[in-house]
Amino acid sequence: MKRLLLLLGLLAVALSSAAQGKIVTDSLETRLLGGVQKYNIYLPQGYNPSQQYPVLYLLHGLYGTYKDWASVGGLQAVADELIASGELRPVVIIMPNAGGPDVNHYQNGYFNVEDWPYEDFFFQELLPQAESKYHCGGSKGYRAVSGLSMGGGGTLVYAQRHPDLFSSAYAMSAWLDQRPGDLRSQGNPEDKLTRTAISVWKHSTIDFLDRADENSLAALRTVKWFVDCGDDDFIFDLSARFYQKMREKDIKCEFRVRDGAHTWEYWHTALRLSLPFASRNFQQ
Amino acid sequence: MKRLLLLLGLLAVALSSAAQGKIVTDSLETRLLGGVQKYNIYLPQGYNPSQQYPVLYLLHGLYGTYKDWASVGGLQAVADELIASGELRPVVIIMPNAGGPDVNHYQNGYFNVEDWPYEDFFFQELLPQAESKYHCGGSKGYRAVSGLSMGGGGTLVYAQRHPDLFSSAYAMSAWLDQRPGDLRSQGNPEDKLTRTAISVWKHSTIDFLDRADENSLAALRTVKWFVDCGDDDFIFDLSARFYQKMREKDIKCEFRVRDGAHTWEYWHTALRLSLPFASRNFQQ
Amino acid sequence: MKRLLLLLGLLAVALSSAAQGKIVTDSLETRLLGGVQKYNIYLPQGYNPSQQYPVLYLLHGLYGTYKDWASVGGLQAVADELIASGELRPVVIIMPNAGGPDVNHYQNGYFNVEDWPYEDFFFQELLPQAESKYHCGGSKGYRAVSGLSMGGGGTLVYAQRHPDLFSSAYAMSAWLDQRPGDLRSQGNPEDKLTRTAISVWKHSTIDFLDRADENSLAALRTVKWFVDCGDDDFIFDLSARFYQKMREKDIKCEFRVRDGAHTWEYWHTALRLSLPFASRNFQQ
Amino acid sequence: MKRLLLLLGLLAVALSSAAQGKIVTDSLETRLLGGVQKYNIYLPQGYNPSQQYPVLYLLHGLYGTYKDWASVGGLQAVADELIASGELRPVVIIMPNAGGPDVNHYQNGYFNVEDWPYEDFFFQELLPQAESKYHCGGSKGYRAVSGLSMGGGGTLVYAQRHPDLFSSAYAMSAWLDQRPGDLRSQGNPEDKLTRTAISVWKHSTIDFLDRADENSLAALRTVKWFVDCGDDDFIFDLSARFYQKMREKDIKCEFRVRDGAHTWEYWHTALRLSLPFASRNFQQ
Repeated sequence: MKRLLLLLGLLAVALSSAAQGKIVTDSLETRLLGGVQKYNIYLPQGYNPSQQYPVLYLLHGLYGTYKDWASVGGLQAVADELIASGELRPVVIIMPNAGGPDVNHYQNGYFNVEDWPYEDFFFQELLPQAESKYHCGGSKGYRAVSGLSMGGGGTLVYAQRHPDLFSSAYAMSAWLDQRPGDLRSQGNPEDKLTRTAISVWKHSTIDFLDRADENSLAALRTVKWFVDCGDDDFIFDLSARFYQKMREKDIKCEFRVRDGAHTWEYWHTALRLSLPFASRNFQQ
Repeated sequence: MKRLLLLLGLLAVALSSAAQGKIVTDSLETRLLGGVQKYNIYLPQGYNPSQQYPVLYLLHGLYGTYKDWASVGGLQAVADELIASGELRPVVIIMPNAGGPDVNHYQNGYFNVEDWPYEDFFFQELLPQAESKYHCGGSKGYRAVSGLSMGGGGTLVYAQRHPDLFSSAYAMSAWLDQRPGDLRSQGNPEDKLTRTAISVWKHSTIDFLDRADENSLAALRTVKWFVDCGDDDFIFDLSARFYQKMREKDIKCEFRVRDGAHTWEYWHTALRLSLPFASRNFQQ
Repeated sequence: MKRLLLLLGLLAVALSSAAQGKIVTDSLETRLLGGVQKYNIYLPQGYNPSQQYPVLYLLHGLYGTYKDWASVGGLQAVADELIASGELRPVVIIMPNAGGPDVNHYQNGYFNVEDWPYEDFFFQELLPQAESKYHCGGSKGYRAVSGLSMGGGGTLVYAQRHPDLFSSAYAMSAWLDQRPGDLRSQGNPEDKLTRTAISVWKHSTIDFLDRADENSLAALRTVKWFVDCGDDDFIFDLSARFYQKMREKDIKCEFRVRDGAHTWEYWHTALRLSLPFASRNFQQ
Repeated sequence: MKRLLLLLGLLAVALSSAAQGKIVTDSLETRLLGGVQKYNIYLPQGYNPSQQYPVLYLLHGLYGTYKDWASVGGLQAVADELIASGELRPVVIIMPNAGGPDVNHYQNGYFNVEDWPYEDFFFQELLPQAESKYHCGGSKGYRAVSGLSMGGGGTLVYAQRHPDLFSSAYAMSAWLDQRPGDLRSQGNPEDKLTRTAISVWKHSTIDFLDRADENSLAALRTVKWFVDCGDDDFIFDLSARFYQKMREKDIKCEFRVRDGAHTWEYWHTALRLSLPFASRNFQQ
């Protein structure tokens, strides 16, 4: 009987506590956005504040919140498993908040718009405070960014504008480069969702690359780039166009088109590629 | 603006309704188990009752219910995507109920025990009624079985005992062949969980193979077998032993050991292998 | 000792004869091309002329010959393994000859050019004779086409122009849609290589799609399409452009961009995707 | 025309020189084996003798030579591609010679037997001389070992007996632990092949683990272990038994069973797992 009970005991344990790192919710007061902003943070098993960890910023999409990667993205299970197998170094993963499901009520977006200077908040408040508090990041070699959809666009734009801060950038199903012509004549520019969309085209990554001088291109070549988009994604063309422009500018960039659409199933599997990519491009 | 609004409209649609088949909950009155038993059933996009579909029975594990594959297993997303890509034929997937989280209150298990003649219920009530109602299955060539943990054991035992009914069997992280010696002297055989465990060793797949005569072995060779278990699974040895016995008996069986443990993350990815395996082994 | 000798004996056997289907070289007299054209043909294990098999045409690239898939493409090992695992139905694979390494001496190409009416040869001589001789193909449902580089272009053009003949088309690293403007003013149109290139742009798949009427588009939708190209391929843009045009015309097409360049290593791994794709799209 | 010619020119280049590292053949005089022993060595693109590289020893199988990984294993293409994508750090790969196709003429094996003190040769002559000459390795953190079949057994035995020298060990389709009972009564112990087989069971990894004291087990836990074997491999049981013994001894070890047999096709795909595994376990 002993062995059987042991087996069943283990079974219960295995089902209830297979996960070994932990995800905690924290928040910071922000002068720039006003009030308090929450974020989730993954701490690997055996997290020890006397050590220094690399950090990955993992960004959610339009209509989403800081909770998404933990609640539907499978972050805990995937990160735990990849750390166990050695494909992911022990890493701190920060999941900030840049929106909310009611896009008329919550301003969504990773860029500065009126009353929502999010990029300033990200780099001036969130990043230094969180990295200090959790003993992670601290320099380009120990910092990476990744995200899905609107967060995929955020990933590429952040790394374009701050190549000195990120060792790698991995965009999933990126929403970016909304063409200016689409926006000219209509729409109420004071609607929150319209403001998000306008901020996306104002941060065109294609225009950025077309305008970049040699120094700027050289800086971009210090980042490891990865673009991943499903063949059935309704915004597939945006990722393809970005990648083709990167080739034209001779900036090395990985590109993958896998089977799938603009869905959490795609991003769940993308995470298995994104985390090891960040890991092997951290400073060694 | 038109194209932008279109884009954002599509985005909302994409996020809310990427799934295209549907999962419905149904139930049947059962004389054998008494009362009513629920089950979930996946119907592929464009499901048409005037057609006949192949059917897959997808079994949950100990402590689980008929809801698990839909709620945490990712069934909807994975099935929709694999059908879209052609890796899965349009198929009806039936997820029966064989337990519940409180193993002292709910009898768990796929085999006949006192007051819980589940195997009889499965083959005499559930299978004929569901297949008739949903126009699926009907013969070996159009029927497959798969499952995880306790349901992985159920998968292999059902296919061993009914090789005339299943074209293929795919077991994930199977719980099977609990050794008799483990149970002799102790434990209250009237506890529901003990009864489950006893029924598992009474249905030893190893003993079945050792006792099988040539006719029986020949029948087993008409089923396509697949055993899949994570290298970090605490019951890994059970799958390995089953596979090695199948080799010894010269019954062709696929075996895969992938990275992972006894977790839903493993079964989620296993599903991407299990569904196409069932599909390509349906009659053509 | 017995078991050891057995083991070593098996080892020798395993190393010398793991492959189980066979590749034979055959040839046919051709009135259209003149003389004799060789081809390789893969016959699955247990090939039985009294049965009827589906057929896959597998096309080589510029500078290549009918031998390439067998000698460097790994065809034998991959096909044997995929048949053994059930991912590939027993299939006859025909590898025709459309060129040679000396492009000034041998006319390369799958299309009709002066003195090299290859497309006519393919459909009027090779296809009917080989299918009759080897008891394969016979209709759209039992016929597929795939190929690499120049043969990837051939794959897409053949399936565009003969959608009634192929159930599926899988193009690897396709060379197609050489833009007309590139060719106007220079080059000796009588050079064999120039003739090949001119025939490629004359068979523009983009133009074909742009000119297609509704009937023609409907016919194209009866073929299963798959385009596969490495992100580091120097002609990546050609595959991307084709795929985007297919989306625009609402013709379902799988697209994959995997890691790699214009190399045999890429095509070797592509074969593991191409063969099951052809297989599951044969008539059932 | 210009662009077309450019395209065709690139095509020729792409086909002739996609590979970018290089494989050279070198040799060393050996007092221990007598005469001269050849080996192949892969030097990554941009190899610079003023730098220090990590080193991987890649071992061939019974009946094989130092040429195998280059000629049929696809080493050049796979290593180049994985370095380009960042999955493999620039690394020196040494492919030693431990046999030959005529096993009656050439002594095969990685262990010391009469007149063939190969293990001594490996650690006392080859390793120090090659690492000094090619500026690689130098310590455990920068040294890994991998191999197939007989070389898979060599991999595990070398890492067991020299855990202070290797950061990781990856065995493919390993030949190891030939059971003693198989050899007792027959066979001519002076036959070269019999001597190879005897040396395999004398170096039983199972016995080694069973006899290991706590210090020795602790040392083994400093190595990263990976065992990879096809489900259709005729010596599958040997890998499974080794892995299960490692679990029993609580030594972390990755185990994968993929589809395939004892074939080069299996080892070719195994290489895509082995090289990144070695890479991420080098000291950072």
